[in-house]
Amino acid sequence: MNRLREHIEEITPITDEEFDYIQTFFTLKKVRKNQFLIHEGDEVKHEFLALDGIFKVFYIDEDGKEHILQFAKKNWWMTDYVGFFKQKNSKMFVECLKDGEVVSLTLQGREKLASEFHKMDHFFRIKLTNGYIALQQRIILLLSSTPQQRYEEFSRLYPDLISQIPKKYVAEYLGVSRETLSRLYSNNNK
Amino acid sequence: MNRLREHIEEITPITDEEFDYIQTFFTLKKVRKNQFLIHEGDEVKHEFLALDGIFKVFYIDEDGKEHILQFAKKNWWMTDYVGFFKQKNSKMFVECLKDGEVVSLTLQGREKLASEFHKMDHFFRIKLTNGYIALQQRIILLLSSTPQQRYEEFSRLYPDLISQIPKKYVAEYLGVSRETLSRLYSNNNK
Repeated sequence: MNRLREHIEEITPITDEEFDYIQTFFTLKKVRKNQFLIHEGDEVKHEFLALDGIFKVFYIDEDGKEHILQFAKKNWWMTDYVGFFKQKNSKMFVECLKDGEVVSLTLQGREKLASEFHKMDHFFRIKLTNGYIALQQRIILLLSSTPQQRYEEFSRLYPDLISQIPKKYVAEYLGVSRETLSRLYSNNNK
Repeated sequence: MNRLREHIEEITPITDEEFDYIQTFFTLKKVRKNQFLIHEGDEVKHEFLALDGIFKVFYIDEDGKEHILQFAKKNWWMTDYVGFFKQKNSKMFVECLKDGEVVSLTLQGREKLASEFHKMDHFFRIKLTNGYIALQQRIILLLSSTPQQRYEEFSRLYPDLISQIPKKYVAEYLGVSRETLSRLYSNNNK
């Protein structure tokens, strides 16, 4: 749980006593590659903070096509947030791509922590701000015209992810073919 | 400023005294159609809450093509949030599509209010949560395969916007041609 404390303290200092209480809201869980944290149709009971590992959040459209909403790595939060905040069933899958650990938190837990501690309200606000920025950048990437621009933007934003995620998922995330992506990878490494 | 108070009190009650102080951080501004609140390249000094009117937030890519990130109407917040939170110059334009009024707030003002009042931290967190949900829905709309699905999703989410925004902007937002959009409109009204 030390990693959770470090993560919170990147935003706001907390005392030992406070952390002893705060951590009771979180549950630690090991996750293996290919394991799912959430399936489509599940009640979205938790959000997850990745302490380690790589994850992808995706959905499958009416035609059976998979679309990746986001990846997540250490210190990123993830779930189907529409389902989580609106207490609806999930439209998303959350799958582990590389062994790791997460802590989970319920919406009731989040709201209780935020109402009892001004600093936790602040913490969640700052985390949401970062999430908001990441989603805006995701939209700009999707709107960008060329595969080249999308690839460059993704590499610029997440240089560490590029090397750890199978190419087929990067291609899917960027909405480009695997052949195009391979060309971009090799051009980039010249 | 009553509308600002009503907007805040949808999330959290505040006293007359508190509101007297809180409102000093906001500046009221009338905006006419075609007027810009932000130009690309501007320092992003403010975020804006629309009290009335319709707005669009968009950017122009390297090839000179316009892309609409979002629309905004009464009680929606808008700015180039990446620029605002990171204190960088704007990549976005914010333009008024229909006469209205906004209140503006600086980042310093937002942070001061949030640190002085737990309830304002809470207010901004809840607003960000809603914004986060809207962006996730925007992404799903962009990833959706067919113009028909995109149009239906947009109509479902924002039935009031469909009737107030010029068709050319709706087409641009959805990434479909105007001809396709006209067909969808007329099918929908049969």
